[in-house]
Amino acid sequence: MIKATVYVTIKQSVLDPQGKAAQSALQALGFDEVEEVRIGKYIELELNTADQAAAEARVKEMCEKLLVNTVIEDYRYELSEAQEREGVR
Amino acid sequence: MIKATVYVTIKQSVLDPQGKAAQSALQALGFDEVEEVRIGKYIELELNTADQAAAEARVKEMCEKLLVNTVIEDYRYELSEAQEREGVR
Repeated sequence: MIKATVYVTIKQSVLDPQGKAAQSALQALGFDEVEEVRIGKYIELELNTADQAAAEARVKEMCEKLLVNTVIEDYRYELSEAQEREGVR
Repeated sequence: MIKATVYVTIKQSVLDPQGKAAQSALQALGFDEVEEVRIGKYIELELNTADQAAAEARVKEMCEKLLVNTVIEDYRYELSEAQEREGVR
């Protein structure tokens, strides 16, 4: 079992209205030091495979085909061996 | 300038319909090895301060007050010195 973590960020040249809204809200709450907020996605995938090299290529394909809008978003990903889950899910 | 990165994940005991939808879509595209998908948020904050210890407390407060719904979400964060931005934004 391989765990893939994908970080999707909005490209710097693209407006991030969700981030801007959070920034305004934080400033309204008195967090004046907040200069910029950008909100992306943090995607965790569990892959039922043991072949890390193949998984890497597959995750890239998943990103390009579905998970990421490459016109306006950037992404990077990491693979690791999935740990056994403990306790309550 | 300090950069804070906040990772917001949906608690394991809470359903993640967005993740489930992505999982079904990936499987429909032939990515049969995908066992679970969970989609959280990846928030980047730029803070106009140099005091890392104070910034840490402030970011925690931001998370608890606005950025994270602690009933259904978990979070963790990292602080780092912000790098100068290069080129086109």
